[in-house]
Amino acid sequence: MRIGVIIGTVVATRKCESMVGNKLLLTQPVNIKREAIGEPFVAVDAVGAGVGDFILYATGTASRNSVQKPKSSIDASIIGIVDNVDIHPDVLEEK
Amino acid sequence: MRIGVIIGTVVATRKCESMVGNKLLLTQPVNIKREAIGEPFVAVDAVGAGVGDFILYATGTASRNSVQKPKSSIDASIIGIVDNVDIHPDVLEEK
Amino acid sequence: MRIGVIIGTVVATRKCESMVGNKLLLTQPVNIKREAIGEPFVAVDAVGAGVGDFILYATGTASRNSVQKPKSSIDASIIGIVDNVDIHPDVLEEK
Amino acid sequence: MRIGVIIGTVVATRKCESMVGNKLLLTQPVNIKREAIGEPFVAVDAVGAGVGDFILYATGTASRNSVQKPKSSIDASIIGIVDNVDIHPDVLEEK
Amino acid sequence: MRIGVIIGTVVATRKCESMVGNKLLLTQPVNIKREAIGEPFVAVDAVGAGVGDFILYATGTASRNSVQKPKSSIDASIIGIVDNVDIHPDVLEEK
Repeated sequence: MRIGVIIGTVVATRKCESMVGNKLLLTQPVNIKREAIGEPFVAVDAVGAGVGDFILYATGTASRNSVQKPKSSIDASIIGIVDNVDIHPDVLEEK
Repeated sequence: MRIGVIIGTVVATRKCESMVGNKLLLTQPVNIKREAIGEPFVAVDAVGAGVGDFILYATGTASRNSVQKPKSSIDASIIGIVDNVDIHPDVLEEK
Repeated sequence: MRIGVIIGTVVATRKCESMVGNKLLLTQPVNIKREAIGEPFVAVDAVGAGVGDFILYATGTASRNSVQKPKSSIDASIIGIVDNVDIHPDVLEEK
Repeated sequence: MRIGVIIGTVVATRKCESMVGNKLLLTQPVNIKREAIGEPFVAVDAVGAGVGDFILYATGTASRNSVQKPKSSIDASIIGIVDNVDIHPDVLEEK
Repeated sequence: MRIGVIIGTVVATRKCESMVGNKLLLTQPVNIKREAIGEPFVAVDAVGAGVGDFILYATGTASRNSVQKPKSSIDASIIGIVDNVDIHPDVLEEK
């Protein structure tokens, strides 16, 4: 799973039937300082996330599992809202 | 899912039988300003997309699901036509 | 799917039994101008491709499907011979 | 599988039900000198790993298998604690 | 599949039970000149490979198939020993 921030929404009237009913969220991957890294992508919502939320996302089969649609065209989804990240980067130097 | 623009078509007379009947679309990944990012690739069409369309694509199992061909050689497909993207990039700075 | 050119062959006498009987083709990914992009990799052949052919390849489950070996160790295969690519890159600027 | 160091933990109260009960570990991919490479990501724990541990991680289906949750939203997990890496980089020049 | 050279071994006493009995090989991806490209990773052995061997590796489901452990935590494996690579890079300019 990776972390990101929801920065928008996408409207697609014409789409695969298996995606009907799933909100499409424009998601910006971020680093642990909440700075943008790489390009935004589109994920369905599995946890009631909205614009501005700091989230956890999954890709591939995991994303279809998250909305109980194993046979859908979905390949990315928001699977959690991040409350807190506790970081100890110093452990990299310890050993 | 990621966003792209259909920039062409591909003809492949000799191909896996499981792909027969699926239009092959040359797809250029784009960013939210609709600028090209990375190299074009080939996707099958699941929503009646054509050259010039601003689209949503999926890869892997999701793409086979989109055309109801789970046992095919397909690994990318166009799964939606984007009507609108509503962006709030400012939310990245808010917290 | 992505496009490439077959630039060689690979011989591996000692290999997983599930791969016996599948030709191993050294494949160079190319862009739409047929210029090399990234490193060559090894794919099995599902369409009778040979050195010099301009091809379409797939990765992951799609590649195992292409040779009807879902339980094999294969993760890339040649699934089509490209006859023609019709490109309209101008559509990126249109909107 | 790839190697990394656990550098923190993530708390997400609102998340997919299939992830409840799995510790979320912030994982920094490292090279064989234990130097950070790329961005940290979030993995569930399958082996009792904690902050500072030098670990082996897997992604995709392998990660769901590691915690016996094939239908979960998980796409990365810690699957081993590295005791020792024995390296012979010189073999690259030998042939 | 991609090519690499085995440059070492990894010992992980604490690991997922599904990985017990599989040798862990530190694998350096290489190009066709046998020069290192990218970072080494860890793969299980499916063909009796050892340090110094020039090999073929697979990732994802293919790697679990290679050791007949579809439900394991494995996501990369050595699936062949390369005897010879026959290259015709000139074919890229021919057309």
